[in-house]
Amino acid sequence: MLDATTTAAELTIDDMRAAHERIKPYIHNTPVLTSSYLNELTGAELFFKCENFQKAGAFKVRGACNAVFGLTDAQAEKGVCTHSSGNHALSLSYAAGRRGIPCYVVMPKTAPEAKKAAVRGYGGQITECEPSTTSREAVFAEVQAATGAEFVHPYNDPRVIAGQATCSAELMEQVAGLDTMVAPIGGGGMISGTCLTLSNLAPDVKIYAAEPEQADDAMRSFKAGHIIADDAPVTIADGLKVPLKENTWHFVSNFVTDVQTASEQEIIDAMKLTWQRMKIVMEPSCAVPLAVILKNPDVYRGRRVGVIVTGGNVDLDKLPWMTGA
Amino acid sequence: MLDATTTAAELTIDDMRAAHERIKPYIHNTPVLTSSYLNELTGAELFFKCENFQKAGAFKVRGACNAVFGLTDAQAEKGVCTHSSGNHALSLSYAAGRRGIPCYVVMPKTAPEAKKAAVRGYGGQITECEPSTTSREAVFAEVQAATGAEFVHPYNDPRVIAGQATCSAELMEQVAGLDTMVAPIGGGGMISGTCLTLSNLAPDVKIYAAEPEQADDAMRSFKAGHIIADDAPVTIADGLKVPLKENTWHFVSNFVTDVQTASEQEIIDAMKLTWQRMKIVMEPSCAVPLAVILKNPDVYRGRRVGVIVTGGNVDLDKLPWMTGA
Repeated sequence: MLDATTTAAELTIDDMRAAHERIKPYIHNTPVLTSSYLNELTGAELFFKCENFQKAGAFKVRGACNAVFGLTDAQAEKGVCTHSSGNHALSLSYAAGRRGIPCYVVMPKTAPEAKKAAVRGYGGQITECEPSTTSREAVFAEVQAATGAEFVHPYNDPRVIAGQATCSAELMEQVAGLDTMVAPIGGGGMISGTCLTLSNLAPDVKIYAAEPEQADDAMRSFKAGHIIADDAPVTIADGLKVPLKENTWHFVSNFVTDVQTASEQEIIDAMKLTWQRMKIVMEPSCAVPLAVILKNPDVYRGRRVGVIVTGGNVDLDKLPWMTGA
Repeated sequence: MLDATTTAAELTIDDMRAAHERIKPYIHNTPVLTSSYLNELTGAELFFKCENFQKAGAFKVRGACNAVFGLTDAQAEKGVCTHSSGNHALSLSYAAGRRGIPCYVVMPKTAPEAKKAAVRGYGGQITECEPSTTSREAVFAEVQAATGAEFVHPYNDPRVIAGQATCSAELMEQVAGLDTMVAPIGGGGMISGTCLTLSNLAPDVKIYAAEPEQADDAMRSFKAGHIIADDAPVTIADGLKVPLKENTWHFVSNFVTDVQTASEQEIIDAMKLTWQRMKIVMEPSCAVPLAVILKNPDVYRGRRVGVIVTGGNVDLDKLPWMTGA
């Protein structure tokens, strides 16, 4: 049975299918939007899978729900724990709340108050740490020891990857004949799930990973053939700062067609263009796929492209095109 | 046959049905979104009909397409004309462009450059006037005389009302058992279309018109029993500044359950809440329905409420919660 010790290579398409059955009551089958304007601009047919409309505001709820609802009652009793300052913290809190078990989250004390409030709103219990890896690991070890809660890693967990894999499975059912898929890459959870689904169900579909130039560790890893982790990349796409780990590297190294990067300004421009033309609120991280599509027209022209819009949790008071934001 | 001289009282549900068949190739059947958060907050079940995802970014394209595609070839040859600084200008330009006929738009020279650029982007030809009613009417008369184009009023035109009526018809098909409908009211085109559809197909559904306190001419008209027009109301909901006219007054006076108002701050709060929670970009005008729902909980609690999100054309550089915007 699938647990935290399963390796990436052991994951099968049945794990995705089991995840989908397990999480369906707790997630949305999110809609797919199109834009004639963006199709004309790119010469491609773009299909945006809107995970910004997902429960808790991001695709991460898929993996979190799969992990939480896959626990035995004995495991579940002590709750789940994680460290995250972003959507995984929200998603795991949401999932644990739906199952009625505790969720312990270690967050840097510098994380935005709005994020902390949202985690608490879903019932998550926050322990603050200093904004350093040393402090985070030390505080997290204490929390885990004190609670005995099950650790659910934001992306390097096979249960999480199997959950994220359900997103592209839905998209393939919603749109016939896709030949290309683009998703952002940070730690690689969404891309790994996409690879799990497509390598089994539609192995001819090309899979592009979109990454900020200023956090291009996945591109450099992909070229080098081994994981290269950056220490503290700085990018507006704050969901994409984390490095690949062994489970996600398995999928990236075996199934990704290419990793493409975009500059900060290109990401901001693509984000604003999407808000203006598609009328949806998306995070900077989700704009990276459109940015790379606009940057590499020859790769995408004439193709039917699935684009994963990963989330919509953004601070409306600090939009990147606001002066002084 | 339906033309600009048909009166409101002569409109039938068959005019709506004919409009729907006529415009279907040129519009989206827009999706309906829900939010558990907003449902819990209001104690109602809210179903948001997302006309912000509509072609040209607003429901107005329905009425504009119905007018444009209902013209005979002889009428169409000389094109269409209107005066508008908002979504009707965009929508009529879009519709005319799809039919391949000219569209002449009189706009105040003070209108935002972005709006003018968008009209031109759809092929509309702009003649500028001073920002006064006198100048607008004089310039418009000149344009109409010079071109012989067919005038399509933004809302006091039965062809336009029949087109807007298709929106609530779609919503009733998408969501079973609605007992309440809320839409913003400015000139009354959307509300009139809603009344046309519901008074025929679901006469028990209550219809609420939502209006800014600072442009509350519809509420005062509704109470007084005759049209009261304000000269130059000031509100952030810039689509709702115009007064009722005889055709829309017919529907408002006969079929609207009540007119409810919200303050500027309540509109801004509802707008921001929708962006944050539903992850959609909507105009201030579209936030007025949620604002009145939040303000009148006893009216809406326990009900299944259709909410028309009228459009998403907003200046992202001047959001109302930005300091100094």
